[in-house]
Amino acid sequence: MMIEAIKIQPRMLMGPGPSDVNPRVLAALAQPTVGHLDGQFLVILNQVREMLQAVFQTKNTLTLAVSGTGSAGMETCVDDLIEPGDAMLVCIAGVFGQRMKDVAQRAGARVTAIEVPWGQVFTADQVREAIAKHGPFKVVGIVHAETSTGALQPIEAIGRVVHDAGALILVDTVTSLAGVEVNVDGWGIDACYSGTQKCLSCPPGLSPVTFSAAAEKVIATRKTKVQSWYLDMNMVRQYWGSERLYHHTAPINMIYALHESLRLVLEEGLQKRWARHMQCHLRLKEKLEAMGIRFLADADHRLPMLNTVSIPDGVDDSAVRKRLLEEYGIEIGAGLGAFKGKAWRIGLMGESATERHVDAVTSALKAILR
Amino acid sequence: MMIEAIKIQPRMLMGPGPSDVNPRVLAALAQPTVGHLDGQFLVILNQVREMLQAVFQTKNTLTLAVSGTGSAGMETCVDDLIEPGDAMLVCIAGVFGQRMKDVAQRAGARVTAIEVPWGQVFTADQVREAIAKHGPFKVVGIVHAETSTGALQPIEAIGRVVHDAGALILVDTVTSLAGVEVNVDGWGIDACYSGTQKCLSCPPGLSPVTFSAAAEKVIATRKTKVQSWYLDMNMVRQYWGSERLYHHTAPINMIYALHESLRLVLEEGLQKRWARHMQCHLRLKEKLEAMGIRFLADADHRLPMLNTVSIPDGVDDSAVRKRLLEEYGIEIGAGLGAFKGKAWRIGLMGESATERHVDAVTSALKAILR
Repeated sequence: MMIEAIKIQPRMLMGPGPSDVNPRVLAALAQPTVGHLDGQFLVILNQVREMLQAVFQTKNTLTLAVSGTGSAGMETCVDDLIEPGDAMLVCIAGVFGQRMKDVAQRAGARVTAIEVPWGQVFTADQVREAIAKHGPFKVVGIVHAETSTGALQPIEAIGRVVHDAGALILVDTVTSLAGVEVNVDGWGIDACYSGTQKCLSCPPGLSPVTFSAAAEKVIATRKTKVQSWYLDMNMVRQYWGSERLYHHTAPINMIYALHESLRLVLEEGLQKRWARHMQCHLRLKEKLEAMGIRFLADADHRLPMLNTVSIPDGVDDSAVRKRLLEEYGIEIGAGLGAFKGKAWRIGLMGESATERHVDAVTSALKAILR
Repeated sequence: MMIEAIKIQPRMLMGPGPSDVNPRVLAALAQPTVGHLDGQFLVILNQVREMLQAVFQTKNTLTLAVSGTGSAGMETCVDDLIEPGDAMLVCIAGVFGQRMKDVAQRAGARVTAIEVPWGQVFTADQVREAIAKHGPFKVVGIVHAETSTGALQPIEAIGRVVHDAGALILVDTVTSLAGVEVNVDGWGIDACYSGTQKCLSCPPGLSPVTFSAAAEKVIATRKTKVQSWYLDMNMVRQYWGSERLYHHTAPINMIYALHESLRLVLEEGLQKRWARHMQCHLRLKEKLEAMGIRFLADADHRLPMLNTVSIPDGVDDSAVRKRLLEEYGIEIGAGLGAFKGKAWRIGLMGESATERHVDAVTSALKAILR
């Protein structure tokens, strides 16, 4: 067998993630591997937690990076909070809400799901009514930024309703974190997971998570073991905490990369970073609408970092994406689930949220669609 | 918050993993991130599968890298093969056998465990008797190279007994793969997982797994869903396979690194690599025994890549390891479980299996223990 060394042709990553990665992050990734109990590395772990707290806007002690991608973070939050037979309400507005329902059922939850049409958002009243009708629930789960539709759910208002009903709110911020406001403490979020490869602009492979004191207590006082050994926060926390008990070998180099990407986020500042994402979105919107391309998500609830647009009539979806990738080096995303073949998903995430990216993708699309 | 960029003081990694990483692997790790459906990346995925097949010595189609560390690989094999109520026999000879029992119970298995004292191995007869007495079993699980004790289990003979009884054999090769022979097809192993940070000398974060046709069929014909969505091979296989269905975002850069580390393994050749590990082990053994330090595992079943030795009387365990790390830049491992405070674990894995490493750790130990 003769397999050549890989040699990557770089792209402009403007799909639903991964996004472009800063060379500083790639350089951190390639620092020498050391042991997971080496003092040098433990300092890095502590700093990662501290920076994650800043980015999540929380003081939660139980804040760390799960050793898997965003979906492992989803499974961590669900598996750790749910015991077999627990009632959970899942708010579904796209593919990732559906995924959460599937994960919750596999964890043994009695799941009630409510849905809104793709591209729309829930109101707090809808959630209140669902709880009144089908509750009580132990956990209410919702996706903040639904990557399949491009819509942003109003978490703060929904969180109040959930707390009024005595439940915990679990929020997917995979796509939103560091691209729009996510205020874990201010909004009273109890469990929250994200991914590294979206607005944090780190390669995929880790999932930042954070749990409120209330959620932590629920996890610590379970009657049954968490069904996943790998994702059991009762053990993982003892490695990230001062006990430093070995659980599994941390993904050392990926933690280096996350450390550098968090430094970049905090150097820029959260407010400035959110504003940059919004400015790029508005620029993209103006240019696309001038070309007659329309957005699919509700005008009032559009994600700046994930722009879901309707594929113009008569246009060959995959041929266009293929030309964008091969001739222009630009990756955009296909539609997912109900939007398959109907939508493009144009990401402006982290390092990919620049005027240069917006102008490149729109001028390339203009040339291809001409 | 002012957090400095990380700057790692390199170590000689001679603990139970991670092991030293070749600069070529670190360079691959830092190649530009691309999308998980980019044609460039799909070629890499195929090559990784092909090289994993070569290293596992298998033709198994269902061979891939799970997006988590070795423990996630353990959970994948157990969760995918076990449905609630299934009977599983776990052979425990150390910490990782205990872990497998815990994972199996969390998956709902009815677990029977048999144990041998730490440092010893099972005979095929012991396993045959356990099956006759407590069986039948759907799955028999065993750790090939027990990282907590340094003992190597005779998998080939045990596999025959397991198959005679109509069960599937699940083998942990986290520490053994690419350091001693692992012959998945030749030994009839049905499910097998490993880790990247041991004898493959890649940073931690991925778990190579492989399933026989029989195991694949068991997974495909389950009556219940796999309890872990993230580790459900019925879905993950459709991304690694020709369907290329999105499941979760692959850890792109870690796959680059695994690709390069597998190239290094195959460039050297499996036989030569196993021989190198054995030669280094013998050199270490000679030098340590000359210093009066004795090995803890059975003489006939010692792991070459993980040398578990007794801490000499009156020696301060953690003080010695601290001096090794801080003054000599050498990491060795502490004892785990029953061997805590009683043993050191000296790893000679992959890039760390060289005469230079052996001589460095023995001369440093000699100076410290003088």
